[in-house]
Amino acid sequence: MPNVQLAEAFYMANEALKSFSPTPASIPPPSVNYRLRLPDDTPVHHHALNPLAFLLRAAQIYPNKLAIVHSDVKHPVIYSYAVWAQRVQNFSYGLLNAGISPGDRIAFIAPNIPAIAEAYQGILGARAILCAINTRLTHGEVAYILEHSGAKLIFVDHESTHLVKDAKVPVIVIHDTGRQDDPYEQFLTAGRKFSNERGWPGLEWERNEDAACALNYTSGTTGRPKGVLTTLRGSYLAAVANAYETGMNRESTYLWILPMFHASGWTFPWAITFAAAAQVCLRSVSYPHIWHHLINSGVTHYCGAPTVQIGLINAPLARRLEKPVNAIIAGSAPTAHLIGELEKRNIKPVHVYGMTKRLTVNLTYFALYVRSETYGPSTVCYQQPGWAALPLEERARLLARQGLTYATAEEVRVVFPPEEGEGADAPLRDVPKDGKTMGEIVFRGNIVMKEYFRDPGATAKAFRGGYFSSGDLAVWHPDGYIGIMDRSKDIIISGGENASSLAIEQELATHPDVLEASVVARSHPKWGERAMAFVILHPQKADKWAGKHAEFEKDLKTHARKKLPGFACPEWVAVVPELPKTSTGKIQKVELRKLVAKL
Amino acid sequence: MPNVQLAEAFYMANEALKSFSPTPASIPPPSVNYRLRLPDDTPVHHHALNPLAFLLRAAQIYPNKLAIVHSDVKHPVIYSYAVWAQRVQNFSYGLLNAGISPGDRIAFIAPNIPAIAEAYQGILGARAILCAINTRLTHGEVAYILEHSGAKLIFVDHESTHLVKDAKVPVIVIHDTGRQDDPYEQFLTAGRKFSNERGWPGLEWERNEDAACALNYTSGTTGRPKGVLTTLRGSYLAAVANAYETGMNRESTYLWILPMFHASGWTFPWAITFAAAAQVCLRSVSYPHIWHHLINSGVTHYCGAPTVQIGLINAPLARRLEKPVNAIIAGSAPTAHLIGELEKRNIKPVHVYGMTKRLTVNLTYFALYVRSETYGPSTVCYQQPGWAALPLEERARLLARQGLTYATAEEVRVVFPPEEGEGADAPLRDVPKDGKTMGEIVFRGNIVMKEYFRDPGATAKAFRGGYFSSGDLAVWHPDGYIGIMDRSKDIIISGGENASSLAIEQELATHPDVLEASVVARSHPKWGERAMAFVILHPQKADKWAGKHAEFEKDLKTHARKKLPGFACPEWVAVVPELPKTSTGKIQKVELRKLVAKL
Repeated sequence: MPNVQLAEAFYMANEALKSFSPTPASIPPPSVNYRLRLPDDTPVHHHALNPLAFLLRAAQIYPNKLAIVHSDVKHPVIYSYAVWAQRVQNFSYGLLNAGISPGDRIAFIAPNIPAIAEAYQGILGARAILCAINTRLTHGEVAYILEHSGAKLIFVDHESTHLVKDAKVPVIVIHDTGRQDDPYEQFLTAGRKFSNERGWPGLEWERNEDAACALNYTSGTTGRPKGVLTTLRGSYLAAVANAYETGMNRESTYLWILPMFHASGWTFPWAITFAAAAQVCLRSVSYPHIWHHLINSGVTHYCGAPTVQIGLINAPLARRLEKPVNAIIAGSAPTAHLIGELEKRNIKPVHVYGMTKRLTVNLTYFALYVRSETYGPSTVCYQQPGWAALPLEERARLLARQGLTYATAEEVRVVFPPEEGEGADAPLRDVPKDGKTMGEIVFRGNIVMKEYFRDPGATAKAFRGGYFSSGDLAVWHPDGYIGIMDRSKDIIISGGENASSLAIEQELATHPDVLEASVVARSHPKWGERAMAFVILHPQKADKWAGKHAEFEKDLKTHARKKLPGFACPEWVAVVPELPKTSTGKIQKVELRKLVAKL
Repeated sequence: MPNVQLAEAFYMANEALKSFSPTPASIPPPSVNYRLRLPDDTPVHHHALNPLAFLLRAAQIYPNKLAIVHSDVKHPVIYSYAVWAQRVQNFSYGLLNAGISPGDRIAFIAPNIPAIAEAYQGILGARAILCAINTRLTHGEVAYILEHSGAKLIFVDHESTHLVKDAKVPVIVIHDTGRQDDPYEQFLTAGRKFSNERGWPGLEWERNEDAACALNYTSGTTGRPKGVLTTLRGSYLAAVANAYETGMNRESTYLWILPMFHASGWTFPWAITFAAAAQVCLRSVSYPHIWHHLINSGVTHYCGAPTVQIGLINAPLARRLEKPVNAIIAGSAPTAHLIGELEKRNIKPVHVYGMTKRLTVNLTYFALYVRSETYGPSTVCYQQPGWAALPLEERARLLARQGLTYATAEEVRVVFPPEEGEGADAPLRDVPKDGKTMGEIVFRGNIVMKEYFRDPGATAKAFRGGYFSSGDLAVWHPDGYIGIMDRSKDIIISGGENASSLAIEQELATHPDVLEASVVARSHPKWGERAMAFVILHPQKADKWAGKHAEFEKDLKTHARKKLPGFACPEWVAVVPELPKTSTGKIQKVELRKLVAKL
């Protein structure tokens, strides 16, 4: 692909990429009309919002610009926007060819490979609904989702085929080669044939922007997973906000660390095309590969959980980068320690990024508040001009809050939980803005999900009072910012006092030798409950405390007593090599509780 | 206002600002709920798009941040977002208090002062429609617009009261003092009283995002002006695109050079609040004031006509700026000379801005394609990665095209004009992408106007074939970019050949001594028509040619013959001190034609 404007690095560093060429079906005709057929009654001035518009525009303006590259595999691939758009069109026709109708659900089980990125675009051309499934689920969980979603067709990566054995609908296996003999490529080729070169105008633009776009099942910490149904309009507006708030533009390169199967990749699949940026796929979160891209591939943006960052700063290849990188952090509050370590390497978590004086987007994500039901990021701890001057730890404390709503979001509030026997329509009452009174975070607006699929009961419950009830407990600070405390089960009730395990974790993490800490309730003969802390030591400090657990426990407790009320100080401290985490890097407290229950 | 985070410059440099304090009615209550009342049946996940949402969000997140400042007047004012939002709320209630109902038109005649910026926000709270009128119109023209729009209420700046004498509806005179005794301030104070402290929740959110937002009358070069009716949805999406494409963020400061009365200021009144940026008002386009702000006020963005730039680079205060400034240029093609001169002063017209390596928005406006009917900027000559390396003049030629559609725009095409007796529904036929065949630019999508107000005939004519017909002639280049030639009357038909006066102007402007050139047709005994050029010499070169008109004419014609076909070379050359221009900096060729007709 001589004509493609490639990031030097990919092309020069990778012999296999140089010799790669796309399948014949991926090559667009000489002249392409990048417009779908609009319904006849479409007004001149009012077109249904649809994130597919971004890819069509990017391909029209930058046909030869790098769209997507997948370099860290045996069979690397690289596509320009013109070629990639053709593959997406083939995907759409492939679905029609397979008998898919508007509104049908398509299951997709794969890591961050080009095929799933193509699916996020291609389903829109066929007006189908993408149901991307977590590759870490069990066969039973996947079976439930396939059943509940009523998926008509399944795409599965060759490493995950065991998850769909005895599936009742057709299965297309993806070998992730980009080569002609790959069943997935054969699906695209069939689509191209079926299109009969009708091209984009042969596909119809969805007339209703409130139509469903994706169906994302919650990781379901308790009970059955629920299917979060998103809309075209919401995906469009969330993607625009992501591109704007993170400062992505056509010079940006996005690295896929966050799983695309997770909450539609927070709509970044479309934020990237809105910005006409390049995206780099990654089959697995491998720190050497990530560092290779940070150092050589001109990566400017990535999303990830704090745990990913922790691995990143401790990887052997870790070094200071020449250009700043925007790390959009989700999952829990980055600690002062983590922020400091990242800054040393010139990786700026977006929420401290703003402290630089550059005229660029300048804000805080606060990722504890990423929810599938809100298309991913929904509030940001926007930095106030005064904060830049504050000491790191104080900054971190201010930044460890959820802040206020996102660019295209509407309303967020913290309200009192429903009274006993209160109706679902009872008006919500705000908690006072005192930073103390706990309430529930509620949301409404254009980046709130449409419903829980096929679950009117759960939807009605979640939408009480005309807002989406997050189930997350928080306080409302005097400055109007929202600060998440814990889900109710994370509250430790000790001698009648409520202690927030998150608040305790925040304080323990300020201990110089602590890399990460997680706290759960453990029953206590006298106090009812007491905090038990699970702690990972900073690698450089592990030796210092080797064989001295008692001394460390004493030291940590002394540290804690300086900062926490007595009832919140951990009664027990366990030093562990690692903590149980979900595929998206969230600590599985349920596992810790099981463990504690046995003590 | 000690608590306001002010741009140092304003506060320190201006004694009058230090002593200023807002009227009592401008001071918000201690705690504000920044939400309007939503219609009862509003879905949790679907709120009507409305650009007022941006101001509410900015005030909630950054109450103490500088919102708007007006410093170059006898009575300067400065408002934080919290205070400014209160004034906007007062404006909304002031309208209700005056008996204004949803859908009523409000006429506003003022230069770029805070009052009109407040109107752009305040009308939305009252669900009224803003009809901003060009202050340079005659009494007769204004009378026509007042009559045709059916305005219920008129706001007029104290310098323009003659335009509304004997108006049949109430008139509120703005003395632009921000002081209590100003009739405009009394209007706001009355609104505050009327609100009875019900605040934002006392106002209802418009349920229909397709409802009208503004009514902007075209400058009407020929015939009666037409009323361009825009919508809330279109204004929201256009403003988001403007903020994104120009890289405006909360650290930005926007300088008001472009008249706010012109096409809703291209929706920048809302792009600024979307970005939570600061805005600087300017009663009149005074180069000393502009340079003062560029040098001292941290201005990062402004929009303007090329003629403004020309004045700017030749102003005595002109110098190289420390930080780059984004100049969004509209009205006609900047020449290579102009781009070079601006770059020397570190003023980067946005369309060359992209040549820097900074990770920031990186694109080209091409402003010949700013139309009221498309909310201002609608296409951009996006730069291709390869262009940066090209010589300035070649860059300028590539950049002197309209390019492709804007971030939230949809479709643009160049089509053949309608055949004789062809129906309005006849499908449009694209011209070949050969860079030669002339056709008409047509548009459709969310940033196209809703209609010409009270003119179904003109609307139907403008919307033939399901697109907005711009009436602008253009070619479609092989790279897919659109290049405007001229409006049909700007075509010079010479010996049967069609010469584009714009193309001729472009070439004449490449002459080293030419600052600006305008070309019109003049009748010719032999050829039917021939080009006559009106030329402004570069100040530094004026002496060189003083008293040597014949020599200069010869020199310019020789220059032209090198670049243009014989039939396009100007037959006559007039050197003039200035060219007749509209208030928005567009050259009034109609005046030049009148002049030529007399020759």
